[in-house]
Amino acid sequence: MQMDRVKISDSEPQPVLIVGSVGYDDIETPYGKDERILGGSASYACLSSSYFAPTRMVAVVGNDFADEDFKRLNSHGIDITGLQVDKSGPTFTWSGKYLENFNQRETLDIQLNVFENFKPVLPDDQKDTRYVLLGNIHPALQAHVLDELKAPDVFVAADTIDLWLTIERPAFLELLKRIDLLVINDSESELLTGESNIIKAGAACRALGPDKVVVKKGEHGAYFFYEGGLFALPAYPVTELRDPTGAGDTFLGAVMGTLAAMDKRDVDSIKTALLYGTAVASLTVEAFSCHRLESGGAETIETRVAELREMISL
Amino acid sequence: MQMDRVKISDSEPQPVLIVGSVGYDDIETPYGKDERILGGSASYACLSSSYFAPTRMVAVVGNDFADEDFKRLNSHGIDITGLQVDKSGPTFTWSGKYLENFNQRETLDIQLNVFENFKPVLPDDQKDTRYVLLGNIHPALQAHVLDELKAPDVFVAADTIDLWLTIERPAFLELLKRIDLLVINDSESELLTGESNIIKAGAACRALGPDKVVVKKGEHGAYFFYEGGLFALPAYPVTELRDPTGAGDTFLGAVMGTLAAMDKRDVDSIKTALLYGTAVASLTVEAFSCHRLESGGAETIETRVAELREMISL
Repeated sequence: MQMDRVKISDSEPQPVLIVGSVGYDDIETPYGKDERILGGSASYACLSSSYFAPTRMVAVVGNDFADEDFKRLNSHGIDITGLQVDKSGPTFTWSGKYLENFNQRETLDIQLNVFENFKPVLPDDQKDTRYVLLGNIHPALQAHVLDELKAPDVFVAADTIDLWLTIERPAFLELLKRIDLLVINDSESELLTGESNIIKAGAACRALGPDKVVVKKGEHGAYFFYEGGLFALPAYPVTELRDPTGAGDTFLGAVMGTLAAMDKRDVDSIKTALLYGTAVASLTVEAFSCHRLESGGAETIETRVAELREMISL
Repeated sequence: MQMDRVKISDSEPQPVLIVGSVGYDDIETPYGKDERILGGSASYACLSSSYFAPTRMVAVVGNDFADEDFKRLNSHGIDITGLQVDKSGPTFTWSGKYLENFNQRETLDIQLNVFENFKPVLPDDQKDTRYVLLGNIHPALQAHVLDELKAPDVFVAADTIDLWLTIERPAFLELLKRIDLLVINDSESELLTGESNIIKAGAACRALGPDKVVVKKGEHGAYFFYEGGLFALPAYPVTELRDPTGAGDTFLGAVMGTLAAMDKRDVDSIKTALLYGTAVASLTVEAFSCHRLESGGAETIETRVAELREMISL
């Protein structure tokens, strides 16, 4: 079906392929709690990307994945050819709690379930995708996706979490040599490089491989490090923060969707894409799960991008 | 003497009058410690403002204030006609320690000394100053300076600290109705308004009186709240943080100096002034006391402002 797309350019949007997790979350924040809500890096990133470009999801769900949730993905026009349904067990679940100021998150429980034996399989006709987002999963699986890709000019972005930087560091360092854009948060950049100063950490990340690096600072925005330069972007001024889960995945999904819509990956285009990423991420945090992300709509996204442009205009 | 001025505009810079403290600090940071170093809100703010405009200091020192320190103020061309020398006792002293991440500061000792009986006296020929910075001192003293001012179109900026928001709240709330620009940090904005969300806190500060409000976020930059708008500015990307003392005073000194140099106080001019404030503050934090602020020079400031402009350019 046709999505309510954000109009980025006159050219035909290129497809984006996104690999990551799909799961059910139990989440508690200072504002409330909700159970068994659609979550996972691929869910947020695909719903976000789909505002900009045709989006291909590569992930796995179990025997309990609800029809309603398939419909949610469908209603955003997401191509789920690469979404495996593993009947041998239930879908991945995560349970977490945010402490008072939202700055700290505690994982209460993780059940990998069908995710434990997941190996991403790219449909043959998706192997030539030129915009690929490696969402947070085991770096060996991220590398496996790269092995399957065939486009000579593929642009690859990757995210990760502190877990892999700790227990799978060598594999992640190998992966870094093969990607174009790394997007991680500030504490992860310190864990990866040993630098507590974010400016030094960003430069050190680039020295590990990726030509372009974005370090996210949550409510304080993000830094984009590129050859010879630095771009600083504020967060969208959210006043009704409800649940930050998925903000980073949403951000990167919109960044890649925007780049695919423009079919560009130069520094200036990435700066523009970061504005869209910021705007869409601000939707995600205003409600639990993907609800506000799904309902936000192209017009709201465009309004927020215009506000962000104004916020940094001299 | 003639200062190494930053060239802001072709018009003649207007004078800036700055009231605040001058003191000797003992400071310990994760990088080292230093004793009996020149500090105080007026010292930092005046040295900073003097890069842009003729600067008039209103403050007090005691019988132990060193000739060398008078010379430091003189060599920056600061008019010390309004600097009282109280022979009855020693200069104000402050002793503080920064904890590991620089985000927390502990006051170890304060000796008010001659500051205890300080009452600012404005030289008659300075009462018509049109750019006035009320640095952090007791709000009753800040109000007293306002009472002395005569220019019908004076532009007044004020800073404070959490202490006054706690023990002199009514006096500070009265002051707020009389100033044009409030500049405080994020924790102070929460203490003042009860809003933990910085966007709501900034709006709530404006509702208390000042038409224009800047909320500083340290390494994360600052927000400027004005009628119908919001401007977000990153911090200068400092990689060699040594001692953050005086950064806020330096910031505001340069903001007011820039506005006086342009003789403008509209929203766009304040945005530009905030860039200069950010650039000069980045000098202060690179060394203990005012040393790097004093030696930085106009050319370095201009280079850093250019870098900041580039950092927010799409």
